[in-house]
Amino acid sequence: MAGTPIEFYFDFNSPYGYVGAHLIDNIAERYDRTTDWYPILLGVAFEKTGAKPMGDVPIKGAYQVLDAARVCRYYGVTYKHPDKHPFSSTAASRAFYWVKDKDPGQAKGFAMALYKAALADNEDISAPASVARVGASAGLDQKEIMDALQDPAVKQRLVDETNTAVEKGVFGSPFVIADGEPFWGVDRFEILDEWLVTEGF
Amino acid sequence: MAGTPIEFYFDFNSPYGYVGAHLIDNIAERYDRTTDWYPILLGVAFEKTGAKPMGDVPIKGAYQVLDAARVCRYYGVTYKHPDKHPFSSTAASRAFYWVKDKDPGQAKGFAMALYKAALADNEDISAPASVARVGASAGLDQKEIMDALQDPAVKQRLVDETNTAVEKGVFGSPFVIADGEPFWGVDRFEILDEWLVTEGF
Repeated sequence: MAGTPIEFYFDFNSPYGYVGAHLIDNIAERYDRTTDWYPILLGVAFEKTGAKPMGDVPIKGAYQVLDAARVCRYYGVTYKHPDKHPFSSTAASRAFYWVKDKDPGQAKGFAMALYKAALADNEDISAPASVARVGASAGLDQKEIMDALQDPAVKQRLVDETNTAVEKGVFGSPFVIADGEPFWGVDRFEILDEWLVTEGF
Repeated sequence: MAGTPIEFYFDFNSPYGYVGAHLIDNIAERYDRTTDWYPILLGVAFEKTGAKPMGDVPIKGAYQVLDAARVCRYYGVTYKHPDKHPFSSTAASRAFYWVKDKDPGQAKGFAMALYKAALADNEDISAPASVARVGASAGLDQKEIMDALQDPAVKQRLVDETNTAVEKGVFGSPFVIADGEPFWGVDRFEILDEWLVTEGF
């Protein structure tokens, strides 16, 4: 199974996904594994499980805002809860797949830049123009991104990727599938690591 | 704050609470801290947050059953998902508080015996007679437990403890409050540990 990429699913709204994005490639490299990143629209998965965005649940919502900031501090990841949350991650996710098809490595850097803009710098990345501007800062062509975001095939791609993820059982962010085994949450990365060491326990 | 006990909330249905019960006193002792254990009826908290028992949510439920068993294996805790789950943890929780008032240390041993019966040995501990039998195996008087479980004051105690916990923001199991800081989930114990080392970060 060493040739199979570790699948990393995330939503650009998710601070836990943001922390996961900082960690997942280091974990994979330790076991000579590669990763494949998949931004998804968590709202579509939430329709299946009846879950709500983390801030919207009574009592638990306030805890999760506190916890997300604490988890980021624990891992040394700069985080600021955005004024507008959740925001639409549709344009960011569409643009990611368009870049990924050309250069998966560059797509990861682009994802990190989008995450930083949204969850550290309090920038609203919901609009295509904002996504293109972040892309330019990550070395991509701003106009090409704007054009890609109008392409029906690019739009359909995100629908398809999200549906495929949900069919595989993805319901949260981050969510990792390694050799068929599902791991939900950055708090399971230590167990994921043990799983990769032992090849399943 | 070193004199303030670390509050440990749990439901006897919760495998994550079971793992937490194995770990919490060791963590506390490392920092010369004591713990105070509070079994609660998680269903009452779920009414506030709209949460459901872990097995009842589509897709996520199946994952959580898999994950709970995996977390137990990771921590070396023997676990068997009970045939009947969730079960009523009312009698077990009532009996716990009755024992705790006499001897908090013995109450912890009793809680571990109840947890083991329910989550390792597949015993139905919902009936008072079952709770009393587990009590006898933990060195308690079987008839005294049966009598206590008929006492209106013992019944009211659990209602009060659960309400107080929910008012403090407890909505899951395990749930720890240390010096006012809330920690939900055994997967936050590493961060709890760091919190105790640094006295908050």
